[in-house]
Amino acid sequence: VGKNIIEPRVLKGFRDFLPDQEMRRKKIENILIETFESYGFVPIDTPILEYTDVLLGKGGGETDKQVYRFTDHGDRDVAMRFDLTVPFARYMASHRQELYTPFRRYHIGKVWRGENTQRGRYREFAQCDFDIVGTDSISADFEILLLMKRSLEALGVSRLKIHVSDRNLFTAFLKNLGLAEHSVEILRSVDKLQKIGKEEVVSLLSEYTELSAAEKIVDFITPEEDWHQTMDKCRRLLGGDSRAADRLDFIYQLIRDLNIEETFYFDPSITRGLDYYTGTVFETFLTDYREIGSVCSGGRYDNLTSLYIKEQLPGVGSSIGIDRLITALEHLGVTDFAQPSVGVLIFCLDPGYISYYHQIAEQLRNKGLTAEVYPEKKKLGQQFQYAEKKGIPCGIFCGEDERQTDTVNVKDLITRESFDKITVEKGIEKIMEIVSKHETA
Amino acid sequence: VGKNIIEPRVLKGFRDFLPDQEMRRKKIENILIETFESYGFVPIDTPILEYTDVLLGKGGGETDKQVYRFTDHGDRDVAMRFDLTVPFARYMASHRQELYTPFRRYHIGKVWRGENTQRGRYREFAQCDFDIVGTDSISADFEILLLMKRSLEALGVSRLKIHVSDRNLFTAFLKNLGLAEHSVEILRSVDKLQKIGKEEVVSLLSEYTELSAAEKIVDFITPEEDWHQTMDKCRRLLGGDSRAADRLDFIYQLIRDLNIEETFYFDPSITRGLDYYTGTVFETFLTDYREIGSVCSGGRYDNLTSLYIKEQLPGVGSSIGIDRLITALEHLGVTDFAQPSVGVLIFCLDPGYISYYHQIAEQLRNKGLTAEVYPEKKKLGQQFQYAEKKGIPCGIFCGEDERQTDTVNVKDLITRESFDKITVEKGIEKIMEIVSKHETA
Repeated sequence: VGKNIIEPRVLKGFRDFLPDQEMRRKKIENILIETFESYGFVPIDTPILEYTDVLLGKGGGETDKQVYRFTDHGDRDVAMRFDLTVPFARYMASHRQELYTPFRRYHIGKVWRGENTQRGRYREFAQCDFDIVGTDSISADFEILLLMKRSLEALGVSRLKIHVSDRNLFTAFLKNLGLAEHSVEILRSVDKLQKIGKEEVVSLLSEYTELSAAEKIVDFITPEEDWHQTMDKCRRLLGGDSRAADRLDFIYQLIRDLNIEETFYFDPSITRGLDYYTGTVFETFLTDYREIGSVCSGGRYDNLTSLYIKEQLPGVGSSIGIDRLITALEHLGVTDFAQPSVGVLIFCLDPGYISYYHQIAEQLRNKGLTAEVYPEKKKLGQQFQYAEKKGIPCGIFCGEDERQTDTVNVKDLITRESFDKITVEKGIEKIMEIVSKHETA
Repeated sequence: VGKNIIEPRVLKGFRDFLPDQEMRRKKIENILIETFESYGFVPIDTPILEYTDVLLGKGGGETDKQVYRFTDHGDRDVAMRFDLTVPFARYMASHRQELYTPFRRYHIGKVWRGENTQRGRYREFAQCDFDIVGTDSISADFEILLLMKRSLEALGVSRLKIHVSDRNLFTAFLKNLGLAEHSVEILRSVDKLQKIGKEEVVSLLSEYTELSAAEKIVDFITPEEDWHQTMDKCRRLLGGDSRAADRLDFIYQLIRDLNIEETFYFDPSITRGLDYYTGTVFETFLTDYREIGSVCSGGRYDNLTSLYIKEQLPGVGSSIGIDRLITALEHLGVTDFAQPSVGVLIFCLDPGYISYYHQIAEQLRNKGLTAEVYPEKKKLGQQFQYAEKKGIPCGIFCGEDERQTDTVNVKDLITRESFDKITVEKGIEKIMEIVSKHETA
């Protein structure tokens, strides 16, 4: 046998989820789902494998190298999805006739990228996207921002700032400075403001423009005291009308009308780097764990489906990095999402009574409780250990004495209190008491 | 633009899920999860990609050709999981020290096989496995059988038969006949009894043995009136003691003690073909849709982790083919799992009131309702159509007249009843009435 043993190893950047981790992840997902659905968002799903040209387009850029791509049995060039946005675009194009607009969708699923794992990144990770497509209304932009706030609140995170800008604001400003042709490089440099500071950004920018313009750019993207002051400065530096500034101000009016302005922050440095956004853009930072970066980002796009169909389909959406968020929730100790087991273990004192144990378990389940039968006669210490490992707060014991008198012993496994030789009915009542005591604890 | 358009096609054997389909799937999964958890089963997850030798062993058999397998960026030979059993075995071997036994796990996830799609098979499909490992007790076998019944009942399927046998029963019988060396071929032939009938099986078997033995084999695997009669015949044909028969009889005793014998059927023809089972085996047939085949099958295995570690880890488990089950539920019309939308649409009569609409929506959500704001001014007909497409039963209308009198109009979109110019508070009350009326309908 020994020579055939295979080491049970897992690929670098991939993970198993132990039961507690998986329960926490599911709990978090369920809270998000409940929030999304209360806003009328509906779930979709797409295949994990797609034709490579459908996912990457006919060209293929820098990030494409990270894509898991291969030739399948039918000689098709296929790839594993690397985000939930491209498959969503393909999905909308495929099902345009079956779907209505405005279409509010959410999608929680895993994606794969062959990233460098040294930066603590995973190659298999979960994303959670929510979008409204088929409308370019400001109401939709606002709704996504509101839902970002409400989703994080539902998870117990209330100390957060959502940084908002409009990509057209900055590009219009660059155009005024005559720097439109360098906008990609400048956007890339400006995106680093939070990380490397003003001076470094000025120095990066001076590669493309003279010092005074570089300083002007940094001035433009530096937020002032509050939304209005920042906006006044941007409008002044822009000189003239700006549809982007008007849209942002309208969004802010909606924010104030709903009394949630403490969460929102106009931050002209937010440009979402090289992404495909064409309007409003936003990122979310946790007040007590800023270092982890944005936990929820997104923006408005002109045309989701341009790769596949001619019809224009504008939209706005946001994406939660579930793994990063879970790390943050753990760090903040916000809530314990591991579902407390509030069950009952029926100890096995005599294997001859095993069907009786199963009958009691079924009665408990019918009352809505989780109930397990220890399946065989092992030392009691081992059975107690099992209950402890699983966090089961309640035990039922029934040996020969009890069976012959139609009674059971019930034990609170946490306080160690015992209630001996009571009827099964009384025992179930007692268990309900113990369980609800530990639930509310 | 036209020349760069990519056809938004999906790979053969792969599927998108439209919102109603995805909601139904999630609802079914959640019902299963709730049932599993009431029996103390806990969720796990494993990577979708693994080292190929970890999934396939060092050899590679017939089914391996169907595995999606490729070389990754780091020149690793990797494969996508093709079931949830092999990854579970690897998982138990990897985490043996962190986990307790008996370990009750469930795992719902997608798997991939490059199957022939002409037989209506998918290449990406969901499985749902539940197992108890670390015990060879009969109690565990029984618990899996009970949970199979309860899971399907929870989904509204009560007319079903679970066919049970023990693989050792048949192999002992073959050994008695001196046919042990042909057991693989004979198991394969016998497995076809349901499909091709007695005579054809006898003719297949006569390739390996004389006619009288072939007839004896078919006699052995043909069930009689009830459990006891079938068992009596098997014991007679076996001649002598049989541990497998004793185990089966003990399982049946538990089944009768729990008064669920109408669901279970001793069927010695069940052998689970070439699978790795070593004891109890079972398949589930729907009384009103037998043709679809088994919707939930499994069995006992001696040693889950033999490929990876030396410690013996016996267990018993079952697997629900979710896709097949959903097809069956649809066919039977058992329950409509599409969650009825019980929400409210706030119609957009005047975009100037959009923040007021959002405020009303937030009030409704705080009462636990699903509420949506139509994000822009479109023709009312279009907005009504949207509500109809999404099955939203309730509308709120607020134009200039209403806004100036601090009132709203509420409409039951199904009965078309209207409640005009009532206060927002009254309106919310009215909506709660309408929604609960349609919920109970």
